[in-house]
Formats: sequence, C-alpha cells, structure tokens
Amino acid sequence: MTFSAKLSAAVRAKKTPVLVGIDPRFKSIPECLKTGVSEYDLKGVANVYRTFSFRILDVIAPHVACVKPQLAFFEAVGPYGMLALADVIEYARKLGLVVILDGKRNDIGSTAEGYAAAYLGESSAWKGDALTVSPYLGEDSVLPFVNVAQQNDAGIFVLVKTSNPGGGMLQDLVADGRTIFQHTADWVEKTAAEFAREKGEKYGAVGAVVGATYPEQLAELRKRMPHAWLLVPGFGAQGGTVQDVAHAFDEDGLGAIINNSRGIIFAHARKDYAGKFADSDWEKAVETAVLEMKAQFADFIR
Amino acid sequence: MTFSAKLSAAVRAKKTPVLVGIDPRFKSIPECLKTGVSEYDLKGVANVYRTFSFRILDVIAPHVACVKPQLAFFEAVGPYGMLALADVIEYARKLGLVVILDGKRNDIGSTAEGYAAAYLGESSAWKGDALTVSPYLGEDSVLPFVNVAQQNDAGIFVLVKTSNPGGGMLQDLVADGRTIFQHTADWVEKTAAEFAREKGEKYGAVGAVVGATYPEQLAELRKRMPHAWLLVPGFGAQGGTVQDVAHAFDEDGLGAIINNSRGIIFAHARKDYAGKFADSDWEKAVETAVLEMKAQFADFIR
Repeated sequence: MTFSAKLSAAVRAKKTPVLVGIDPRFKSIPECLKTGVSEYDLKGVANVYRTFSFRILDVIAPHVACVKPQLAFFEAVGPYGMLALADVIEYARKLGLVVILDGKRNDIGSTAEGYAAAYLGESSAWKGDALTVSPYLGEDSVLPFVNVAQQNDAGIFVLVKTSNPGGGMLQDLVADGRTIFQHTADWVEKTAAEFAREKGEKYGAVGAVVGATYPEQLAELRKRMPHAWLLVPGFGAQGGTVQDVAHAFDEDGLGAIINNSRGIIFAHARKDYAGKFADSDWEKAVETAVLEMKAQFADFIR
Repeated sequence: MTFSAKLSAAVRAKKTPVLVGIDPRFKSIPECLKTGVSEYDLKGVANVYRTFSFRILDVIAPHVACVKPQLAFFEAVGPYGMLALADVIEYARKLGLVVILDGKRNDIGSTAEGYAAAYLGESSAWKGDALTVSPYLGEDSVLPFVNVAQQNDAGIFVLVKTSNPGGGMLQDLVADGRTIFQHTADWVEKTAAEFAREKGEKYGAVGAVVGATYPEQLAELRKRMPHAWLLVPGFGAQGGTVQDVAHAFDEDGLGAIINNSRGIIFAHARKDYAGKFADSDWEKAVETAVLEMKAQFADFIR
C-alpha cells in the first residue's frame, strides 16, 4: 500500500487529523520519570526518553493515526538516544501508528540516498513511514528521497512554508512573481501529482510542511498542491488554532495532519491545566489533551 | 581559542587547504577490509567503517589540517554507525585534526539547539569542531547553531551555493536584485563579521559552503563574505579544479578549505590510477592522492 493510502486509511480509521509530535526534552519530562537520573548521564537520559515515549504511545495509540518523533532530541543524547529512537519507532509501528520522522535531512546525490536509506530504506535501522526533507539544495537533492520513498511505500514531507517567525527570510522572497515557498510548492505538486496519477490515487508520496501560523498561505498552498498531503506544525503552543488550519483540508477532511507536540506530551505542565494534574498523573494530562484536540476536529473527517 | 583561530593555525601548520571528506560507502571500500561482511549486517558494516576511517586518518593526519565526516553514511548503517562515528570523531581530534561534521542540519528554536548540542555542545557525544547547517528555515533557525558554536569555540558552515547541478532551483532565483544564495551569503557575512569584530579576528565562527563547480560565483562570494571561512566541495570527482578555486582564498592563502572525498579515500579505484595500486595497497593510494592534491596547492599558504 502506498504511503498516502496508508495515511488516508489511518486518519479515517481514527477519525482525526491529529498528529502527535514526540519531542522529548529532559527538563520538561515529568519528575517521576527522572528520579536519580542526571541530565549529563546520556545513557540514563536516553532510557528516560524511551520510557517516556513508550508510555505516551500507549496513551495516544487508541486515539490518533500518526506520530512524529523529532530526531534532534534523540540525537542530542548521542548514540544511546539513537538506539532509543529505533525502539520508539518500532513500538509505534507495532501499535499501528503511521510514523513520520522529523529530521529535515538534505544532501546531494548518493549522500541523499544514504539518508533516505537510513530512515526509509528496506534494511533501515530507523524504519519510518515518512521523513521531512529540506529543499535548499534543489531538485537533484530531493529526488533521491522521493525515489527511495516511492520504492518502499514510504513518503517525504518537503519544507515549504515553515511555522517559525523567521522562516520568511528566504521563503518569502519573491522571484519571477512567485515567493520561494511557492517555487518549492510548485515542485512538490508536480512531483506528487505524477506519482498520484501513476497509482490512480488522489495524493502522491511527496507532501509538504506548511505552518499553521500562516493561515492565508496555508489556504493558498492547499489549492496550489492538490496532490500533496500537508503536515501542519505550529498548532497549539506556537499559536495556531482550528480556524487557522480549517482550509488545510480537502472536501473529505483529508489531505492534512495537524501536529501538536508540547501541548500534548507535556500537557501536565500546561498553564491552562494548572492544578489539574499531579506530576504522577501526567499520562491523564496527555490523554485529556489529545482528546480535547481531537474534539476540536471532531466533524472534519467525512 | 575560537574556531577560526584554530582552523587558521591548523591550515598554516600543515601548509595546505586540503580538507578530506570521510564518506564511507560499503561498495567502494577496499575488498580486503570487507572479507566475510555482508552489506545487510549493519553492525559488521559499521565496524568496517570504523576501521576504514581510522586507517585513513592515520594516513592523512601528518599531511592535512582538517577532515569532514559525512553523517549520512554513518546514519545509513543505524545506531552502530553512529557509535562508529563517535569513535571516528574522537580519534581524528586525538590526531590533532579539525573535525567538520557534514550533517546539513536545520530546525527551529529549541529543536535547533538540540542539534547544536548533539554535535557541538559541551557534553556532546559527537563533539565536532564545526557542523554544516542548511538555511531554508531562516535566521531564527540558524542563530541557535551560531550561539552554541560561539559558546563552545566551535563553528558552523551555512549552505550558500552548493556544488550540485540542481542547486540553482532555489539558490539561483533572483529576488530584490539578489540571488537567494546572495541573500544567504549576506546574512552569513553580517553574522560572521559581528563575532570577528568582537574577538578582534579576521574571520567569525560562521562560514559558508560554496561549490568549486561554480568558479565565478565562488570568486564573487569570497569578496562578498570577507569574514567567512569558505568550505568548498566539488573539487576532483565532481569536476572542480585548482583554477576553479583559486579565488576562494584571501591574500594569505587562508579563508578557504577545499574538500575532496572520493578522490582521496577511494583513490585505489581512481581511473587515472588504474593498475597502479593493488586492493591491499589502498592506503598507499590514499597517501599518493592526498600528497598530489597537496602539491597542487603547494604555494597557496603564505
């Protein structure tokens, strides 16, 4: 089954576009999971990340279709972190979740193939369903990812319009009457449409990252890339609301997944939950947050 | 000592701008190192990468100032590859080499800090002297790398004009009278100049990646970024020549390091060396190639 078919089926089955970002940060993890572990003990921290991630996956797997582990936080604790990441990916897939690896990788030619093999390939140690990819190096740097993804029923999400305030430095510049992010979007659409046509599906294996924090551009980019799944970061802690992302979806309520990381995995520390959950009740906080977010999108999937 | 002072001293000491790229690819590694190891045995492959890299480092350390391990190839063999990478970095630094990690990482805010901590931070498991960084996400995605680098006497090299044929897709677009790569270059120069002034040094902690395959742009970018070290890929196997990179240097022959990966580490298989080196003589081929490249730049450092 192609990646887009897999993602559509999973989103329909769970009836929600909610994507949970797995971004372990030592300082934000509930105290009860860190007893006796120093932040300088990388092996200890990696074990905490594994436990924390597994327990989050147990809580959210019945409710959502997909998760997005952020590679940077696992890499930050070194090789032990990368071993924990492999376990987290494997466990998430075992629970039936679609796993999107947020690595924002990019390089040229055979080096790009190396990254694609690492995260999407047949004998990959961190076998994910999809990987985020940066486009600065151009077409011949992204195509090796596309090829490996298509051959392995996996997907990629190319950074188009990111959610951060400074993203416009290059992305918003206008060349030949189009912004840089529109240039990137047009390349994504062309590539996604080709594979979608070939497979007789609505969406291709190449999607786009478009931030919830730029709702007008998000609506425009939905129309501009009818064959691309959108991965939408910036919801919740970064300020994006349901109204902001309402135009990210197609007429069936598909075509977009809305990421929330901190607002769900560190829900025990949310200001709007103050006094509601004890540290040891952090899993209840996670479940409450995921169900609340799910409720906000309750009538989206048709 | 700042990164740029460290790099200047190392280049002067070895009297060469040659940078050796450590890009292990299983298929290209000498047969005598792979006996009994299958390409699907990731632990076995990682061990081959460690041995191969260590022996290259032994050969080249007396001759060159710096090396550039390519993270993608180590990641491609999973967590064991990342353990091998840690060992290779540690060994290279023990041999007195400046270690530039080619990871082309990028993300926003605290996630960028995660990557910076992973590769340049105080308690980093893969402690390098510098890291390559992609600029697509804009200023607030690169600054966390800059800050961590500056605080740890490390450096970063931002992708400006890459060596691949397709790099122009976004990089060559013209907005407000400047190409995208010039916009990136101007940001690099501003950031590098500020730190250089503060430290009373010629170069800052932020350098730029500019391909040898675009000699005119390389000459222009040297002038445009007087405070940035240039990391120049594309020499040798990708087609760049000594003439192509001649204008990358300042008046002291400093300010640029010229990368060669395949042409040195897989020299035993070079067409122009056909019949010259037995598989088991691969280290002689590596030494011959590095000395030949060094000779081409013999009178550059003043």
